[in-house]
Formats: sequence, C-alpha cells, structure tokens
Amino acid sequence: MKKSLYLGIDVGGTFIKGAITDSDGNILVKDKAPTETQRLAECILDLSDRLTEKAQLSYSDILGMGIGIPGLVDTQRGLIVTAENLSLRGYPIVEKITQRLNMPVKLANDANVATLGEMLWGVGKNYKSAVMLTLGTGVGGGVVIDGVLFEGNLGAGAELGHTVIAVDGEPCSCGRRGCLEAYASATALIRQTKRAMQNNPSSLLWEIGSLDAVTGKTAFDYAEKCPEAKSVVDSYVRYLTHGIANFINVFRPEAIILGGGVCAQGEALLSPIREMLKGEIFAYGLSPEVDVLVASLGNDAGCLGASALLHNA
Amino acid sequence: MKKSLYLGIDVGGTFIKGAITDSDGNILVKDKAPTETQRLAECILDLSDRLTEKAQLSYSDILGMGIGIPGLVDTQRGLIVTAENLSLRGYPIVEKITQRLNMPVKLANDANVATLGEMLWGVGKNYKSAVMLTLGTGVGGGVVIDGVLFEGNLGAGAELGHTVIAVDGEPCSCGRRGCLEAYASATALIRQTKRAMQNNPSSLLWEIGSLDAVTGKTAFDYAEKCPEAKSVVDSYVRYLTHGIANFINVFRPEAIILGGGVCAQGEALLSPIREMLKGEIFAYGLSPEVDVLVASLGNDAGCLGASALLHNA
Repeated sequence: MKKSLYLGIDVGGTFIKGAITDSDGNILVKDKAPTETQRLAECILDLSDRLTEKAQLSYSDILGMGIGIPGLVDTQRGLIVTAENLSLRGYPIVEKITQRLNMPVKLANDANVATLGEMLWGVGKNYKSAVMLTLGTGVGGGVVIDGVLFEGNLGAGAELGHTVIAVDGEPCSCGRRGCLEAYASATALIRQTKRAMQNNPSSLLWEIGSLDAVTGKTAFDYAEKCPEAKSVVDSYVRYLTHGIANFINVFRPEAIILGGGVCAQGEALLSPIREMLKGEIFAYGLSPEVDVLVASLGNDAGCLGASALLHNA
Repeated sequence: MKKSLYLGIDVGGTFIKGAITDSDGNILVKDKAPTETQRLAECILDLSDRLTEKAQLSYSDILGMGIGIPGLVDTQRGLIVTAENLSLRGYPIVEKITQRLNMPVKLANDANVATLGEMLWGVGKNYKSAVMLTLGTGVGGGVVIDGVLFEGNLGAGAELGHTVIAVDGEPCSCGRRGCLEAYASATALIRQTKRAMQNNPSSLLWEIGSLDAVTGKTAFDYAEKCPEAKSVVDSYVRYLTHGIANFINVFRPEAIILGGGVCAQGEALLSPIREMLKGEIFAYGLSPEVDVLVASLGNDAGCLGASALLHNA
C-alpha cells in the first residue's frame, strides 16, 4: 500500500527547513533555504518545489503541508499573529500558500511541532502525555495531553517560557519581568556566564579569550574547575528546575522533555534536575512519577512534527 | 421523562456537604454533616442515607456518587492519596463506599469539582475553556479544556496553587518556597495584614482591636483610608495577577474564574487585576481575549460539580 506523504516545514530565524515525510515519521527528502521574512510564503513554496522535484513527486502525491512558526499563530485563521524574530505581524501565510498550492495547510508554534515530533517518533513515543521545553534563544513550550497537542484557545497557549517564576526578576523579551525564559534560555545562560566573568576579572573562565567567545557550553565546560562557572550552572539548573516543577504540578505529565543546544550536556544537566525535583514536586513519592528526558530527534523534530499536524486533518 | 439523579458530596475540613442533584444542575435536597476524618466513608454514607430519605428516594433511583476531596486523589484507584487538612493518606474511599452502596463512585479534587460546577451551571456556562482559582485557606486550581475537566495523569495535576512565582519567596504549605498559594490564599492575605499592623503600631488598622480580629476582608475594608492596608491589597493583587497571567499564557482559556471568600470584594478585586493583566499577557491585544470573572454558585459549586463527575460515567 502506498504511504501517505506530507510536507513538513520548520521556519527558523535564519533558515527554513523542509522535508517530505510519510505517516510513519520517515523523511524521504529534506532541504533548507535562508529565511527571507519579506517573502516568507514564496521561500516556502520554492523550497517545496525543490523537495517534490528531489523526491520525484508531484504535488498531487502530497496530502498537505504543516508549518512550524517561531511565534504566535492563529490556527483558525491561518495567520502568523506575531513573530518577533521574523518581524512579522498579521501575516496570512496559509492564504498566501494555498493561492498556489491546492492542499490543506496547517500552522502551529515551532515548539509545539517539535513536541509533536518527539512524541510520535522521538524520545516521547512511549508516553501519552508530556511537556516539552526548548531551551534556545528563548524558552519554547509544547504540551501533549492524551496524545493530542494542547495549544490553548486559537493556538495562543502553551507559552511556557512566559510564566513568571521570579516576580520583579530579570527582564524578558515579552515585556514581563522574571519569566522562565529570562533564566532558562541559552541566552540567559550566556548572559549569566558573561556577568560572572565581568564580576571576576581573575576567573579561569577568561581562558576562553573574551566575552564574545561565551556560548551556552562555556559555564558547563568550566563547572568542575572554576567556582564562578559552577555557580552559573547551579543557578541555571535551579531556575530551570523551578519551571519544570511548576509544569509538573500543573500538568502532571508522564514525561518532561528538554530540547535545545543546552541539552547536549546530557546527565550533567539532567541529574541535578532530577535530584532537585524531589523537593519541588507536589506530593512527591505519593503521586505518579514523571520522567525527565532529553529530546532525541534533533533538527528533524520540527519538520516531522509539522507534517504530523496533517495526520488527522 | 424521569430525570437522572446523582449524589454530589463535597468534603471540607469542617463539614461534608451533600446534595441530590439532577443532570440539569438542580438541587433536589441538600444537607451537611461534621467531618469525622477517622470515619470519613461512614459519614458520607450516613449523609447519603439522610439525603435519600429527605428526597423520598431509594438508592436504586440514583445513578452514582461524585465526591470532591480537599487533597490529592488517585482517580483510577479511587484513593485519597493525601489530604493534609483531613490527615488522611492512602485512604481507599471508593472501596469503602461501594462495599455498602452499589453504584459508581467517582473522585476528584475539590477545586476541580467546583470548576466543573461553575462551568456547567455557574458563571462559566457560556465558555468551553476556563481556569479557576479558589482563593481560600490554600489556592486550589481547576482547568476545563473543551468542556472537559483536565486533571493530569491519574488526577495528580492542576495543582495551580503550587507553582512558584517568587523563587526563594514565602514558605508554602507544600514545602516549596514562593508558591502562588503563599501569596494569593486568604491565609496569605491575613498574614500580610497582620504583618502590616505589627510593622505599623499607629496604623488605622488597629481599629479592629487585635491581630486576632484580622480576616481576609480587613485590608480591603481599610484600603481607601489607610496606606498600610492599601499596600497589602496592592501587593496581594499584584502576586495574584502574576499567577493569573501565567495560567493565561499556559492555557489561554476563554475565561479565568476566581472563587473563595476574597472574591466577595467583586470589582475592587477584579478591576486592578484586569488592568494589570494588559501588561502581563503574552501578545496582549494581538491574541484572544480572556474574561476574568467571579464564581457564582457559592457553596453549591462543590456538590453540583461532584455529581457532574458521573454525567459521562
């Protein structure tokens, strides 16, 4: 039997990734193109043309297109409501694409599609419910309940990074102060590492050369040999764990999935989180356990999850 | 046509309230009994006997019993996992009741059943999704998504009061520090009012006589004429609003419903919340609006919501 095929598109600030996938989560072909925000729909259409050609398919072979957007979408009207990194507001992306392509097109937030991908074919595949946090430039959130993506009214929920964990704390990109994103993003980790260097001119951290050389890895690399770096890591883990514990108490999912570059730290990140959670989860020991895991699909999660938006369309 | 009838039981720390209800949310009879935690199941059975007698019904007329519990329940095994106020742990309440009554018995957390009641027959009846916060001794949470109560894995989620909004903040009954409950409960409001009095020996608040006379109303009563009281109210509203904004960003419900004695303040509470939310909701003005409302069923919400647990059983 011929398998159902989909176009999965993952829009990022720098690149648009695209893939043709089947309903078992296999990627037939994939490719990417630079993100041109002024002609986003055209970029996606060009990339789709290349993908179908590469796979020697015609559009009539493809059941639909799913798109992950780094921002707030209106799932009902097919709009990008606002995407800061793309400088887009009220962009009718579904209409623009369906003017040329006659197929269903579905939108979701990028962290939401990554979550869907991980739940169907990645580390979450044996779970029915999970909360995913993507730790990158910002902190994205995705929630799956009973196997179904939970997006809130018109798709405007699951903004897990924009929950205050420290009233009057660090300023956040969203305008609030003290959001989880302002403590648990890679951006926050880099900021705190730089601060530690600036406050400690003789720190071993200066071995890296300059503040510009700081990445999300730096503090972890030096944590064992440098107290300033250890303190940055400890603080990062502590705030992140408070956020995770909050979502466990709210959603009580079967699993928490962490994604993004910081997760390359593996157990150095997961072990202290699991340990600290014992004191933060409501009725710990009496209530259902929650596994804490690292995402496994890497860069493919977005395209796979985006195409999965069409599975029940 | 004869209407379907249910027993709705709402267990509180001091009283157990019970009612026989129909599927339209009408209460045929209601009554209450003191809570004896050592023989909780027996108390519920005695109360049920009285209710059926009062309504001139036999148990065969009743389709099932729903029970709201002030604590963590295991919905699958029919257990009270832990209920601090009742000093109960691992109490097999469903088994104990069904040993004598041959009918389906369903459990849920007390804030969850109150939410269900408000959504079906109270202030939430025109909404499909809502988040409810009950502001009492603690802060309870209830979440309804697409008309269905969301309880998390085995019913252990929706502990909205136990989300940290101020890392390292006020100690909470759950063992964490800085939970919403530690700022937005009536208990917290009373504590802050007492502190304001202790720190200001000449405050007009001392008109009430002594610290023991402080209630959740005191600070609101004096807010217009006493700067210390105003400061307590402002701070209370600010922390509560941070919690509300968090749940809006996470769930993006159509409505937020506030319950509990503090809500008797009405617009004095709601107006400043609505105003502050404009600066705290993610993508405010671009994203779906969220109504902020006060619960309307009062003490009946629990029994009505508890009986509604059986509607689809």
